[in-house]
Amino acid sequence: MTRVYQRVALIGLGLIAGSMALAMRRNGLAGEVTGYARSAATRDTARRIGLVDRVCDSVAEAVAGADLVVLCVPVGAMGAVAAEIAPYLAPGATVSDVGSVKGSVMAEVGPLLRADVHFVPGHPLAGTEHSGPESGFATLFINRWCILTPDAGADRAAVDRLAALWRGMGANVSEMDADHHDLVLAVTSHTPHLIAYTMVGVADDLARVTDSEVIKYSAAGFRDFTRIAASDPTMWRDVFLTNKDATLEILGRFTEELFVLQRAIRSGDGAYLFDYFTRTRAIRRGIIEAGQDTAAPDFGRTGKV
Amino acid sequence: MTRVYQRVALIGLGLIAGSMALAMRRNGLAGEVTGYARSAATRDTARRIGLVDRVCDSVAEAVAGADLVVLCVPVGAMGAVAAEIAPYLAPGATVSDVGSVKGSVMAEVGPLLRADVHFVPGHPLAGTEHSGPESGFATLFINRWCILTPDAGADRAAVDRLAALWRGMGANVSEMDADHHDLVLAVTSHTPHLIAYTMVGVADDLARVTDSEVIKYSAAGFRDFTRIAASDPTMWRDVFLTNKDATLEILGRFTEELFVLQRAIRSGDGAYLFDYFTRTRAIRRGIIEAGQDTAAPDFGRTGKV
Repeated sequence: MTRVYQRVALIGLGLIAGSMALAMRRNGLAGEVTGYARSAATRDTARRIGLVDRVCDSVAEAVAGADLVVLCVPVGAMGAVAAEIAPYLAPGATVSDVGSVKGSVMAEVGPLLRADVHFVPGHPLAGTEHSGPESGFATLFINRWCILTPDAGADRAAVDRLAALWRGMGANVSEMDADHHDLVLAVTSHTPHLIAYTMVGVADDLARVTDSEVIKYSAAGFRDFTRIAASDPTMWRDVFLTNKDATLEILGRFTEELFVLQRAIRSGDGAYLFDYFTRTRAIRRGIIEAGQDTAAPDFGRTGKV
Repeated sequence: MTRVYQRVALIGLGLIAGSMALAMRRNGLAGEVTGYARSAATRDTARRIGLVDRVCDSVAEAVAGADLVVLCVPVGAMGAVAAEIAPYLAPGATVSDVGSVKGSVMAEVGPLLRADVHFVPGHPLAGTEHSGPESGFATLFINRWCILTPDAGADRAAVDRLAALWRGMGANVSEMDADHHDLVLAVTSHTPHLIAYTMVGVADDLARVTDSEVIKYSAAGFRDFTRIAASDPTMWRDVFLTNKDATLEILGRFTEELFVLQRAIRSGDGAYLFDYFTRTRAIRRGIIEAGQDTAAPDFGRTGKV
């Protein structure tokens, strides 16, 4: 594949940055990939496993001469990191990010960047419940969506070039308004995560009562919830704090709906439950047809493709 | 493996019965397996694919001479089916079931059986989101739990023999009180399913607003919810109607907990969210250590093991 950037700097070296580094290397998309992480232990690990071409001990060194800088830190840290890198950015460089919330990143990072730098926020809809520099793998983005949310005045060539990088890593790319992104993700990702966290928390309280039977007999359903609820706590704390309005809006709808189903159970309204469950079954088919999951029954997952 | 029963009759020919038939055949656990389903179409399919040794057109024919009869129908149909088979049961036969709720099955089926018949209710904690006679497979029960809930006066030899059958199909077997079973399952399976159904229903409403973006961008989290919410509507309607008290109890706890987290989001209490998410991450490790899931990251599932 063709090289898209001469030098890519990854700030933050967790699951997403690591997977980007490995995907770029595998596909020859960048001349050099530099990396920086605040934690010395993370930098040491990244060096040991050769995650990027050059692990730097300062952001200044990492971003110097880079034509793309990607912020791969939790959403709550984006502003501070942007302020740190801003003085060292090369003229004409593109700055992007991989945060799960886009409105707050645009509001916090955008104003800190010079006029001669392009800002193209992004969000790859990909991940696992693991985190850290050793959790990345080159195929993470294949057939997953990456949503870019440039503002109206963004440089077209800079946006297209970043889109080419994501396509080169296997992703499908789309563009939308940041606020719309945050609402869609509140439905498809943020609220489901909060619900899973809650259910696992409830079970954890009860586990003390039932002497670990909850873990021992964790059936399908709960088992999937625990996987979701094992995701990185810092990342998710920041998601809920920064996408507060959309999450609270969807949570409100969820609670209303749950109360209606709860009343149907209490009153023994089997017809209502049956119709509801039949309707939700259909949406699953839509997802399989959209190529975002397989129809294979889920148990005994065998891991990475 | 040794034969455990001379003739096993499966009443209802869906995912669980089909998997039992295939597992018994593979492991030589039964001399003959007969099967009956109320729907002629299901019987035809079972015949065409050779699911059991003999598909019968009446319950009388299916249960005649069987030393084990397993009711594999939705929980709400157990009583009616038990009444139908009762007259034809051989003296000394064992009757079991595979229902997800045990209290109601014991209350409804038990009184219908003659004193010379053994009743040993069971529940294999295994399944997929698929249903019907073609969805079964021989390895479904391997390393999964099957919980037996015989009452205090049950015949020990009959219980042990049924346990041997389940172990022969690869399952781990445990025994507990029916009410306790129903509480544990309300936590690990029933309430998580209701929550997943609810979230998918909310998203379905919104999908009309956002023009299918909810499906297109279904990220991890929501994708898992849709899989859970694709489970058999009849089975799940019956679960909620028959395990009403335990489900409502756990739902109440869930809602309380969700409101606390919702308030933490609204008030921006990041420390509370972080601590909560850190605690739930730990329970996941417990499940992996208990051998009920793998640590492999979940994406691109490759289906059956």
